[in-house]
Amino acid sequence: MSDTRFDVLAIGNAIVDVIARTEDDFLVREGLIKGSMRLIDAGEAERLYDHMGPAKEISGGSAGNTIAALAGLGGRGAYFGKVADDHLGKSFSHDIRAVGVHFETAPLLKIGPDYAPTARSMILVTPDGERTMNTFLGACTHLAPADVDPAVVAASQVVYLEGYLWDPPAAKAAFREASRIAHANGRKVALTLSDSFCVDRWRAEFLDLMRSGMVDLIFANQAEVKALYETADVDTGIAALRADVAMAAVTLSEEGSLVVARDETVRVAASPVTRVVDTTGAGDLYAAGFLFGLTRDYDLGACAELGGLLAAEIIGHIGARSQTDLAGLARQAGFAV
Amino acid sequence: MSDTRFDVLAIGNAIVDVIARTEDDFLVREGLIKGSMRLIDAGEAERLYDHMGPAKEISGGSAGNTIAALAGLGGRGAYFGKVADDHLGKSFSHDIRAVGVHFETAPLLKIGPDYAPTARSMILVTPDGERTMNTFLGACTHLAPADVDPAVVAASQVVYLEGYLWDPPAAKAAFREASRIAHANGRKVALTLSDSFCVDRWRAEFLDLMRSGMVDLIFANQAEVKALYETADVDTGIAALRADVAMAAVTLSEEGSLVVARDETVRVAASPVTRVVDTTGAGDLYAAGFLFGLTRDYDLGACAELGGLLAAEIIGHIGARSQTDLAGLARQAGFAV
Repeated sequence: MSDTRFDVLAIGNAIVDVIARTEDDFLVREGLIKGSMRLIDAGEAERLYDHMGPAKEISGGSAGNTIAALAGLGGRGAYFGKVADDHLGKSFSHDIRAVGVHFETAPLLKIGPDYAPTARSMILVTPDGERTMNTFLGACTHLAPADVDPAVVAASQVVYLEGYLWDPPAAKAAFREASRIAHANGRKVALTLSDSFCVDRWRAEFLDLMRSGMVDLIFANQAEVKALYETADVDTGIAALRADVAMAAVTLSEEGSLVVARDETVRVAASPVTRVVDTTGAGDLYAAGFLFGLTRDYDLGACAELGGLLAAEIIGHIGARSQTDLAGLARQAGFAV
Repeated sequence: MSDTRFDVLAIGNAIVDVIARTEDDFLVREGLIKGSMRLIDAGEAERLYDHMGPAKEISGGSAGNTIAALAGLGGRGAYFGKVADDHLGKSFSHDIRAVGVHFETAPLLKIGPDYAPTARSMILVTPDGERTMNTFLGACTHLAPADVDPAVVAASQVVYLEGYLWDPPAAKAAFREASRIAHANGRKVALTLSDSFCVDRWRAEFLDLMRSGMVDLIFANQAEVKALYETADVDTGIAALRADVAMAAVTLSEEGSLVVARDETVRVAASPVTRVVDTTGAGDLYAAGFLFGLTRDYDLGACAELGGLLAAEIIGHIGARSQTDLAGLARQAGFAV
């Protein structure tokens, strides 16, 4: 095995979050399903932006949030994702590099034939803390196998992939290529199922990735597990997961999380949350804490606890990138980071 | 007097805030003076952005924050300010319109000879809640008399001007033109001194504006009052203010605020602040509450109290645009908004 320059390489849709508080009424008026994540085109993006309230713009993207938080714990992270050569792309690149993540994916140039602006996700946060996401993918769907730097993949202990990457065909090919290189170098591959709609779209292929051993570790929440196995009973889904993949970490909202490996089951209670302000990024931060622990050889219970600690932190404020000293938070909770 | 379509027209530098938390060390390394506001050129803006941590982008600008908060209270606001036809300019325009403010200043077009990108202020927030601002003015310095819509000025009860407008010559001319039209229509003109460095640059002209009656109401903090009269004793400064202008509202940090009119003095205690997170916008929000009260014929003490209530709210989180229901907050505190 070659040198481990990075603890985790994350690959995902490079998206800037445009976050606004809203009332439930607004969702009804706009015909939006609370808590859903849907893809929209440029025209719909413009229309919705015109109607929505004042917003904050913060770099996001599921895997981007995860790798930024891993860096916040002191982990060594790398990221592949496609932005455009525009203002949002510059913000995204700045923010991820500013936390020390290696990010060198070439941006989409305005002179190119396939130009599209940087992806943005309009996130509407209702008073109950739920978020409804409307994402215009733009440039990020142009991630392709040519963007997979083999040296970075080979030098990363874990490659972490977003299920969302399965939507654009070129990104799917990049995903497969990265997994191949990782395994050829004795590395582990992790996949987050992203959301239950994503699972609905790609159920058969996700199961195939797990059963063929192309993925070693699955991150999922209850809704995603149920969607994957088309069952109303999460325990049935978890039993199936145990058979299909070497390891799975399932988040259970207020009930904490559950890690299942072949012959091991670990249940961890949720960290206390004083006030649910915005659940954006809870799953992303859980993965960051879990993966940080895994690359530091923590036992599985400690991995899940650190994941839960970070998830609880991010729920307490707007946005999915923490402004808190995560390493300090982890140390305060007794972790040796 | 013609119809009052707007309670307040605010005129200011249209700026997007790029806000990042930082340690004191970073300020020292970059040679920045904590708590200061300085103007930087495009090259310096790029260099500092490269060095600073991950950031949130939120529409800002002193008078923009004021008018957005006034609208949040249910007041009718209008705004003049210059953005460019770029992404930050679109964000700024969206956000101010989304709260119901009338904003129709034509953006600076990319094809024009004087093109400059939308202004941005890089705000570094240290752990003590102090902010250090580094502002690249770009497009906003191109505000000119042609941008002053006389019908909007004539239809506004109060015209509120930023001292910062005094820096670019064309904006200064716009400022004078707006004041002239306002007074010709029997309206009031208010000016915030903006910051003590701004006062140092324009002391003689600010005093002349007050003494000639071109300004009826001054907003200032202690540092600005001391700078205006070049005195170490704030009481000396306040006595001089009373002689020089019809009304002045002076904010005194933890000691609340003081309103002096010719033969009236009102002192109001500060609203309680649980945690100082970021003082950005405290003065802007004070002005919003005060002006809202003034246009609703509150007595001066109630104007100052509503100003203090809003200032305390904004200090509790990052950024100078509130995501809180300000009207609800005011009602809870007993104001009839």
